[in-house]
Amino acid sequence: MPSFRHLKTVVRLNELAEDAPDLTEEGILTPKRIESMHIEGCGLKLFFGTERVTDVTLNALFDLAEETGVMGKMAAMQSGEIINFIEGYESENRPALHTAMRDFFEHRHTSAPAKEATELAYKELEKLKDFLNTIEKNDRFTDLIQIGIGGSDLGPKAVYLGIEAFHKPHRKVHFLSNVDPDDGARIFRSVNLEKTLVVVVSKSGTTLETLTNEEFAREKYKKAGLNPQDHFLAVTGKDSPMDDPQKYLASFYIWDYIGGRYSATSMVGGVALAFALGMDRFLDFLRGANAIDKLVLHKNLRNNLPLLSALLGIWNRNFLGLPTTAIIPYSQALSRFPAHLQQLDMESNGKRIDKKGRPVDFDTGPIIWGEPGTNGQHSFYQSIHQGTTIVPLEFIGFKKSQYKDDIVFKGTTCQEKLLSNLFAQSIALAQGQKNDNPNKFFPGNRPNRLLLSEQLDPFTMGSILAFYEHKVVFQGFIWNINSFDQEGVQLGKKLALKIVDQFAGLRQGKGLDSKSFPLGAAYLKHLE
Amino acid sequence: MPSFRHLKTVVRLNELAEDAPDLTEEGILTPKRIESMHIEGCGLKLFFGTERVTDVTLNALFDLAEETGVMGKMAAMQSGEIINFIEGYESENRPALHTAMRDFFEHRHTSAPAKEATELAYKELEKLKDFLNTIEKNDRFTDLIQIGIGGSDLGPKAVYLGIEAFHKPHRKVHFLSNVDPDDGARIFRSVNLEKTLVVVVSKSGTTLETLTNEEFAREKYKKAGLNPQDHFLAVTGKDSPMDDPQKYLASFYIWDYIGGRYSATSMVGGVALAFALGMDRFLDFLRGANAIDKLVLHKNLRNNLPLLSALLGIWNRNFLGLPTTAIIPYSQALSRFPAHLQQLDMESNGKRIDKKGRPVDFDTGPIIWGEPGTNGQHSFYQSIHQGTTIVPLEFIGFKKSQYKDDIVFKGTTCQEKLLSNLFAQSIALAQGQKNDNPNKFFPGNRPNRLLLSEQLDPFTMGSILAFYEHKVVFQGFIWNINSFDQEGVQLGKKLALKIVDQFAGLRQGKGLDSKSFPLGAAYLKHLE
Repeated sequence: MPSFRHLKTVVRLNELAEDAPDLTEEGILTPKRIESMHIEGCGLKLFFGTERVTDVTLNALFDLAEETGVMGKMAAMQSGEIINFIEGYESENRPALHTAMRDFFEHRHTSAPAKEATELAYKELEKLKDFLNTIEKNDRFTDLIQIGIGGSDLGPKAVYLGIEAFHKPHRKVHFLSNVDPDDGARIFRSVNLEKTLVVVVSKSGTTLETLTNEEFAREKYKKAGLNPQDHFLAVTGKDSPMDDPQKYLASFYIWDYIGGRYSATSMVGGVALAFALGMDRFLDFLRGANAIDKLVLHKNLRNNLPLLSALLGIWNRNFLGLPTTAIIPYSQALSRFPAHLQQLDMESNGKRIDKKGRPVDFDTGPIIWGEPGTNGQHSFYQSIHQGTTIVPLEFIGFKKSQYKDDIVFKGTTCQEKLLSNLFAQSIALAQGQKNDNPNKFFPGNRPNRLLLSEQLDPFTMGSILAFYEHKVVFQGFIWNINSFDQEGVQLGKKLALKIVDQFAGLRQGKGLDSKSFPLGAAYLKHLE
Repeated sequence: MPSFRHLKTVVRLNELAEDAPDLTEEGILTPKRIESMHIEGCGLKLFFGTERVTDVTLNALFDLAEETGVMGKMAAMQSGEIINFIEGYESENRPALHTAMRDFFEHRHTSAPAKEATELAYKELEKLKDFLNTIEKNDRFTDLIQIGIGGSDLGPKAVYLGIEAFHKPHRKVHFLSNVDPDDGARIFRSVNLEKTLVVVVSKSGTTLETLTNEEFAREKYKKAGLNPQDHFLAVTGKDSPMDDPQKYLASFYIWDYIGGRYSATSMVGGVALAFALGMDRFLDFLRGANAIDKLVLHKNLRNNLPLLSALLGIWNRNFLGLPTTAIIPYSQALSRFPAHLQQLDMESNGKRIDKKGRPVDFDTGPIIWGEPGTNGQHSFYQSIHQGTTIVPLEFIGFKKSQYKDDIVFKGTTCQEKLLSNLFAQSIALAQGQKNDNPNKFFPGNRPNRLLLSEQLDPFTMGSILAFYEHKVVFQGFIWNINSFDQEGVQLGKKLALKIVDQFAGLRQGKGLDSKSFPLGAAYLKHLE
């Protein structure tokens, strides 16, 4: 297959981009357009009438999906084929089977690798159920500290906060990630250790931050006269250095075919989430993710919400040349969801080579950022509306609130005000405003789309999580890059260890070893 | 003065950019370079050896500062001259006197407007001191809920979390900003109303979200049989609709010459911060900000840390063409500081016209985003190292931790591991790595700089806050844009009110009024 830039449909899309519709032109942005440009599935509606596309663009984008064989690749991924590799070079060379972590419901995958992965995952789920039943009986634990970083932190935390309204009462989860000692110091000041579980999460069992924070935590327990083994759980790979029943009350397994950023539905998120939500609601969360996993396998491309979102993202990135994407949930509960998507997207698709190892000559994954609305409106929206760098937005909204604790003030509820702002921003960004005062002139024509659903409950949280997982994966398929490795994080780790050694030497009274790493020493000199 | 693009020094800098140094070239990035390329002041050190500049570039950048008269403009701002205006058009037409909110120490400003603003601010500070003394005596309050949005939320919250280690014990502040009813519902589930103060912050006294949340809060108190007037404080403009002693236990004033995003050191941040920290530590925080205010007035441009940072930002933005900037504090306490800077920078400088009302033909403020390190290393750093969109980074680091609660694990402390990662990333991004495996190849030459100081205490928090305020303001001065207004947020508000009216009509049983705003109705139809 030719590289992205030379695909037939890419050449065609480049031509179309020169003529992309201007949403501020009279007669373009109409109620009919908003109505007709939306698709729905699994309780999600995707509105894209405020993107700079026509039906012709959409046809070409779907042709791009066909030309790059994304549906075959998605089927291959979910069946457990090896898709995490770079051809001809040493690479991870394994499947990406996060969808198997929730394939527990109707119409399961029957391919051998997917089936086996699902069975293994289900065993862990049963273990977790038994474990939670036991601690429930004794009423031993009120708090849980999850120690993990990256995917072992961001996804679980985003989901935890996202559906806090559905937690069991008196169950609280804290997340300890940073090697900064102040992160742990702050958390351990706020919990009663006797009533607290600690879940240590590392697939390899070797993550520096996580092992350091585990040790930090164990010392706290020892100092308090408590036995860490009665409190500590491990989530790790089988036979990793952390897979040690002597050290943990219980262990739960993950596998090398689950990438950290795709692991929220595995035991990486499972232990903390099921502790907080209870098993039934945790299963609802998995059910929501699984529903989207099935949706994206449908033969009809036009009903595939994550695929359409992926294609619109590629239109904005590669054809309209926009370097970033903002994800703006109009929901305070999703305050950390953009941070999860930042990892999911940028670690998956922030790549400079394709799957054949050739440096790419086109743009891959954009910079992902965002904060909840309406907060953002009082912060960075000035730049969104009138700045010189155009930012495509992905809005997320819900018809109903979670707590249903609301008031009518000046004729409308808070939820109605929230939705009014959401819809207004989508329109304002696209439509702009003419004015003789140049400061009150809004150029408009700023693309955005909206994912709307009923209520942010556990099922919908799972659906939206999987929606974004598949959006990111589809983009990787189209660009023909490997969305499942992360070699780009290795160099920093390697150099950090050199400086750690320099610190260790100083601590042993050997003085600063400038020779082993002179550039590191140049900074270290300033710590005197 | 000619517009930015036609400045003599800009033409020269464009030539220099074609030849910008490549940091990966043999012999460029040396320990000597790191050592010589740093300046210091007020306890802050700014390292910039890993930026793509030479001494020639630096000279030209300082020439740009001279040519655009930034030092005169800074002096004018701090003296209270009217600098918030667009020439020839209706505009806010007022000074920007946030520096007067903390000019309580040596060498005060003597110009009449600045002096008057300082005296007014000091009166509020005295009022606050008396108020806090009174509640201290009765030991009446343990918690405080700050209701405010944008600048009344982000800055105060970032600072509150930043120096949580220095709080009085048993004093907790909650921040309620979003009009999403779930934001308030969650917070009010977690506090004892009897022991809780509520501070309502709105300069105009008309902010929709804030008034709605105030009403939400008042209803909670009434339902609990408590009198809101015994618990509610106002921070607002004199004679605003909120300046009403019948409704509040006490009122504290702010003025129209304090922009929301510059208001953390005024009563907007003051009430909550002094409640949490105590007055002495709050004064230390102001002292830190004031020290930087004085530093930026020094005649010697070369020791002006915020100015140098502004110039390096302009180099990356306008001459190397980089659309975003990531701010990465290696400090978990600064977890929300990037969100504050996102508002500060993007609302100030995300502008499309210059101060004469002419549309700009160059890029203004970049997209600002970021998360703390080391967390980010396990998230978006893949893209930072190997993505196709180059991101300049501004690192922030501290030699010592806050709690000094640390362990030695494998030969080094957590704090040492944190700093090792910080220094390693700065070097790795600049230096890159050659490798025959294209997936292990790091292009390097990715610009970054580092702001290093002793410890994140109240004084340093104030200094870093002011460092960024002045960095942003200097960039606005150089681009000759108005960094103090935010007309770009108005259109969304206007359209939101139209949809609010449509909702109100529905609630009154009048059916959906499509005619008043057909595009809004197109979305509203989907809420059935």
